[in-house]
Amino acid sequence: MFDEECHFNQPIRWGMVGGGRNSQIGYSHRNAAQRDGLFKLVAGAFDLNASRGRDFGINLGLDSDRCYADYKEMFAAETQHEEGIQAVSIATPNATHYEICKAALEARLHVVCEKPITFTTEEAQELKLIAEKNNCVIGVMYGYSGFPMVQQAREMVQRGDIGDVRIVNMQFAHGFHNEELELTEPALKWRVTPEVSGSTYVLGDSGTHPFNLCGFITGLKVERLSCMRQSFIKSRTPLEDNAHVMMEFSGGAVGTLWASAVNAGSMHQQKIRIVGEKASIEWWDEQPNQLRYEVQGEPARVLERGMGYLYQDAVGVSPDRIGGGHAEGYFESWANIYHCFALAFDAANRNNQEVLSSLIFPGIDAGIDGVRLCEKCVESAEKNAAWVKYK
Amino acid sequence: MFDEECHFNQPIRWGMVGGGRNSQIGYSHRNAAQRDGLFKLVAGAFDLNASRGRDFGINLGLDSDRCYADYKEMFAAETQHEEGIQAVSIATPNATHYEICKAALEARLHVVCEKPITFTTEEAQELKLIAEKNNCVIGVMYGYSGFPMVQQAREMVQRGDIGDVRIVNMQFAHGFHNEELELTEPALKWRVTPEVSGSTYVLGDSGTHPFNLCGFITGLKVERLSCMRQSFIKSRTPLEDNAHVMMEFSGGAVGTLWASAVNAGSMHQQKIRIVGEKASIEWWDEQPNQLRYEVQGEPARVLERGMGYLYQDAVGVSPDRIGGGHAEGYFESWANIYHCFALAFDAANRNNQEVLSSLIFPGIDAGIDGVRLCEKCVESAEKNAAWVKYK
Amino acid sequence: MFDEECHFNQPIRWGMVGGGRNSQIGYSHRNAAQRDGLFKLVAGAFDLNASRGRDFGINLGLDSDRCYADYKEMFAAETQHEEGIQAVSIATPNATHYEICKAALEARLHVVCEKPITFTTEEAQELKLIAEKNNCVIGVMYGYSGFPMVQQAREMVQRGDIGDVRIVNMQFAHGFHNEELELTEPALKWRVTPEVSGSTYVLGDSGTHPFNLCGFITGLKVERLSCMRQSFIKSRTPLEDNAHVMMEFSGGAVGTLWASAVNAGSMHQQKIRIVGEKASIEWWDEQPNQLRYEVQGEPARVLERGMGYLYQDAVGVSPDRIGGGHAEGYFESWANIYHCFALAFDAANRNNQEVLSSLIFPGIDAGIDGVRLCEKCVESAEKNAAWVKYK
Amino acid sequence: MFDEECHFNQPIRWGMVGGGRNSQIGYSHRNAAQRDGLFKLVAGAFDLNASRGRDFGINLGLDSDRCYADYKEMFAAETQHEEGIQAVSIATPNATHYEICKAALEARLHVVCEKPITFTTEEAQELKLIAEKNNCVIGVMYGYSGFPMVQQAREMVQRGDIGDVRIVNMQFAHGFHNEELELTEPALKWRVTPEVSGSTYVLGDSGTHPFNLCGFITGLKVERLSCMRQSFIKSRTPLEDNAHVMMEFSGGAVGTLWASAVNAGSMHQQKIRIVGEKASIEWWDEQPNQLRYEVQGEPARVLERGMGYLYQDAVGVSPDRIGGGHAEGYFESWANIYHCFALAFDAANRNNQEVLSSLIFPGIDAGIDGVRLCEKCVESAEKNAAWVKYK
Repeated sequence: MFDEECHFNQPIRWGMVGGGRNSQIGYSHRNAAQRDGLFKLVAGAFDLNASRGRDFGINLGLDSDRCYADYKEMFAAETQHEEGIQAVSIATPNATHYEICKAALEARLHVVCEKPITFTTEEAQELKLIAEKNNCVIGVMYGYSGFPMVQQAREMVQRGDIGDVRIVNMQFAHGFHNEELELTEPALKWRVTPEVSGSTYVLGDSGTHPFNLCGFITGLKVERLSCMRQSFIKSRTPLEDNAHVMMEFSGGAVGTLWASAVNAGSMHQQKIRIVGEKASIEWWDEQPNQLRYEVQGEPARVLERGMGYLYQDAVGVSPDRIGGGHAEGYFESWANIYHCFALAFDAANRNNQEVLSSLIFPGIDAGIDGVRLCEKCVESAEKNAAWVKYK
Repeated sequence: MFDEECHFNQPIRWGMVGGGRNSQIGYSHRNAAQRDGLFKLVAGAFDLNASRGRDFGINLGLDSDRCYADYKEMFAAETQHEEGIQAVSIATPNATHYEICKAALEARLHVVCEKPITFTTEEAQELKLIAEKNNCVIGVMYGYSGFPMVQQAREMVQRGDIGDVRIVNMQFAHGFHNEELELTEPALKWRVTPEVSGSTYVLGDSGTHPFNLCGFITGLKVERLSCMRQSFIKSRTPLEDNAHVMMEFSGGAVGTLWASAVNAGSMHQQKIRIVGEKASIEWWDEQPNQLRYEVQGEPARVLERGMGYLYQDAVGVSPDRIGGGHAEGYFESWANIYHCFALAFDAANRNNQEVLSSLIFPGIDAGIDGVRLCEKCVESAEKNAAWVKYK
Repeated sequence: MFDEECHFNQPIRWGMVGGGRNSQIGYSHRNAAQRDGLFKLVAGAFDLNASRGRDFGINLGLDSDRCYADYKEMFAAETQHEEGIQAVSIATPNATHYEICKAALEARLHVVCEKPITFTTEEAQELKLIAEKNNCVIGVMYGYSGFPMVQQAREMVQRGDIGDVRIVNMQFAHGFHNEELELTEPALKWRVTPEVSGSTYVLGDSGTHPFNLCGFITGLKVERLSCMRQSFIKSRTPLEDNAHVMMEFSGGAVGTLWASAVNAGSMHQQKIRIVGEKASIEWWDEQPNQLRYEVQGEPARVLERGMGYLYQDAVGVSPDRIGGGHAEGYFESWANIYHCFALAFDAANRNNQEVLSSLIFPGIDAGIDGVRLCEKCVESAEKNAAWVKYK
Repeated sequence: MFDEECHFNQPIRWGMVGGGRNSQIGYSHRNAAQRDGLFKLVAGAFDLNASRGRDFGINLGLDSDRCYADYKEMFAAETQHEEGIQAVSIATPNATHYEICKAALEARLHVVCEKPITFTTEEAQELKLIAEKNNCVIGVMYGYSGFPMVQQAREMVQRGDIGDVRIVNMQFAHGFHNEELELTEPALKWRVTPEVSGSTYVLGDSGTHPFNLCGFITGLKVERLSCMRQSFIKSRTPLEDNAHVMMEFSGGAVGTLWASAVNAGSMHQQKIRIVGEKASIEWWDEQPNQLRYEVQGEPARVLERGMGYLYQDAVGVSPDRIGGGHAEGYFESWANIYHCFALAFDAANRNNQEVLSSLIFPGIDAGIDGVRLCEKCVESAEKNAAWVKYK
């Protein structure tokens, strides 16, 4: 079970740049950071529109004077604050990552940054030096290595369960942008605009995710690569909406990578398959609880999250948030139900029967029906499985 | 996108009975209730061991004087408190639900209770009356109706997309207790002890979940049923570790239910299939993002969470917490990574290099590697896909 | 590999009753019987329409004087024939099975009969006695026990790999007749006509298949059962188009069976799951190459046809007709292609260019393209994976 | 239903070179060619060992004087024979294909040849010219285009159902040779010996199959390609046991191909995915009855063999050999059962009770059990689903 009690006495004081109204990624950062009580959101520069950002922050429960117009103002003020932020998460468009990271590190803040951390490796190396000098830690939000089965995969490869790695096939190939949706979708528009997105679209936006998993799981280093990239939507040139890469790793292994936004009809289709001398493992983010483990000459095995046969020490800082067998999304389902409970309780408090009756949630009648099912099943079973009336 | 801003000005003041140290279900309640900022945990009677419960509550950030020895003390004190709790969640063993619910309702608190709400329908009806009298709402924690694809299923059936319902097959049949593990596992021990668990084990513990979904989705009412139940582990008698039910619904539809804890090798295996005149739908909690929709004479369709073709009004109070295509468990993966970030930031603050170097998380080097991949792919692509050295 | 040489010197002389023009089942019998050269079709009474039956038989290569008007004529003549038939297959509507079987056995012929062998167990017992008296063998065409993975399942259960059997879930639940198609489909019409079909529709037509597999694999005997059956298409009454059965086996195991023709949107959905003390196995006829083997507490295993880890002695009289990994349907795909080859060769012989050019099959250009792919790949690889022009 | 009556008056007289004892591929050719009665095997040179080849042919029912020592003898004799062969199938090691094909074509025989048809495109072009000159047809045994769902895929692409093709991903990547099994397996030994196999191993042996499907379905032509190939088992150098290819097609589409014999733990893993502007289709030879059809923005559809919504004219020369829903492998299962029937009938004829009792097949007791199930289910159902004793 996840140990809620292993908290710091003092959660890390934390701020955000970007991630305001309508930002899905901002919600994800806040949700993740606050899940275990280890971060406490105390400041933010959430929006280019300072007033909207302030409202947003206040709504999240921040003090209004710690809702800032921009990151410069925030870093300047917070470094003077007795209880100023110790860390900041950056969830802004790509083009701004470098300068905000640099400013944060120079303000001696720990950083969590959306990828890409910068547009060039030179810039990224520079950030690394500043961080080292200022005793700061940089986290980059490649979010898939936190899945327990990815961690299990890493441990299996590291222990030699599959033998030396020979082949790594990577893909993150969705189909959501097979048409020119940037004409109406701002969130796509900036991604295909080089000035904001950088030198790539799908390679950076999608392809770096399974590439990160490859490094995380195998530790392999690329020696050389060949990449063909295309813009099937012509207006996206020079950025690509599809790319294929072949690569050779140090030591003789080889790899392929497919990144795409035009894989029509696909959801994520993020997969990684690692072929070793003796066995292969494969993980797919759309069925994240399972890790396929295929030993040559033996039946394929499907490893499941939460089971005792996993490498317990290696899997998760919190392997049992939810328990084996439980559905992923369970927390979200419960949260949706609790959301309804809150609306119902509030409606009852206000004696608003109209709202109350419009809400659908498992209430006392669902409770009664569950009790009755048990009663009637027992009654039938005790009569040697005879048929019994339900009411 | 989930609308974080649609919050009450005043979150509901909320307490818990049970769900303390080592309680997985307690963590689930807190996680769900606090996800959207609609509940604020302010009081608790978390543990039969009052001192341990108090420590637990303090660790969660409660005032020590609102960590109570038991629910009676809590309800008595909170009803006198100016800012006392407005709602309470009950996560205690089954045998205590009735009395705690009753006390809560009599204290005019809204209630969220684990199932079964009571041991008998008479008791449950009594609670219903008290709730109505005191303007209280009762929620029962059947946690699966919050999945967006279950809500989509409900809407499809209600709109007649599958025609009149003919058959409903339900199952929740795991294999975790195919041996007599209650000899060493307290969490199982109480479930097979009639005094604590009630008159059933798997029928109530597992079977009521898909039965609840059946009611939620179809609205069908049972007319009569036949149940055979068994204890394959003999010592569990009179409680069952396996049960099969056939049922007839009002209006001519029929159903089956399989509840089991001895379905060796299975994880949850909670499934519901609803066969209508024209089409069938099927949902499986282990792949909760998908809803299978099979129209006779047409190719089977796989509906996916988050897509525009779903009945938007019906799906979820928050259909886009995560976005279509994103993996379930994504929030947990991010939370795991942020957990590591926190440990790393804390270690850096304490200048503890040993801890820092032992933590595995996507850091600046992962960031650099992602940037380099893009640089090198672009370089190759611009040379007509020529091979390029990686460093 | 399948041993084609292990043939009899003298294939069994074989006749058919029924299975003439437009009979899918007749084709299946001939295809199966003649596959290994162990049966030689020499006589037939293929059709109620004698003339059409004769033409049909001649077309199959029979002597016209051994194409008979009915089974009585055939049995009378063949028993007088020096090289008369030794065995007969019966592929007629259900109501005639008993009388034809009886006549065949009394003519001292071995019999292969479509199920149901009779309408009553008394009749079937009678046939058994006649067969024993006349040294005849009766085969009943339950066609699924010939799948290698079903035979593997049987061997696993017999050896105790899953421990004592506790639960057997069976289903054969398609959706092809969710509407009243018998109004226009004769092949369905007789199946829902009690005089021709017997006392059941889906129970006999579909349900007996997985029930046969249950007996084949586990050897369990039913003690008692409860069945609810329905006609969702009302005109089918008293025959059922849907049925659910619960059963208790000798020794304490239990089972369920679902037979249906109104499971809208489903193909066969014939599945059997056998839950033992230690493990479960599951087989699905739509993915017949795989047998799922789930040991409690271990990763689920997927066993594949043709692999060395199977119980070789038990699996198939001919376990390697096709080789592990090869697709089921491979023989049919090849046969389709050879069919085209024949049409092409014939068209060339007749110098019919129009037909020849209309046929689509892998010809010399496909051959050239395969050779070129290899040439060009080698050329590229030898240049250190450089890009090369294809032509 | 497959039309057995649409036969030629005169089946094509047919011979074989190679494919004798222990040849799995020989069995496949004979099985496919004779399935529909369109070919009649009348001659063969089955084996390098002439005597063994003769025995083999006689066992198949050939006249002994038409079982030849080698192909030269066969072609010489058969061209003089009044009823000599009209076509020949060649199932010998790769290095001999060219010379045998050439000899066959010069003898004015139609040819079916295993791939690769030759080692070089020049040789293949030469064969094409001879064939044209002599009015001969060459078939090359790429055996996957005969699957109905592959033919459906072709028709869908040709009709524009997925829009212009953008990306084709191909793979045939099994794991059977991840170790140096050629030390003991002759069938692998020749495949990794350049003199016999040609310039490639997996590219030719496996990779050309999905490449052939790509051409068959899309008609796309390759413009240029880049290939990296490896021998993970070093002794296989210069032949490869793994290869990756990127390719550009005329018109702007791109493709990838993965061919492997070291994909540890995999069966065939032959897949092709074709991404178009509007939709993608995907076919996998291990689940050949299904074609996945994914229209962007709509639920993914699973098309099934034998269904009315397929393009009937395009699918198969014989779309209903088996009927929708029926399992692939059904013919083989039936053939296995009929095989047992034959052994049982033969044992009864010889009054060999020992053999008879050792055979496992559905006999009269299985027949009785099926009848009884129906009887008892009806009895129960007519008593309002009451429990009834089984015997």
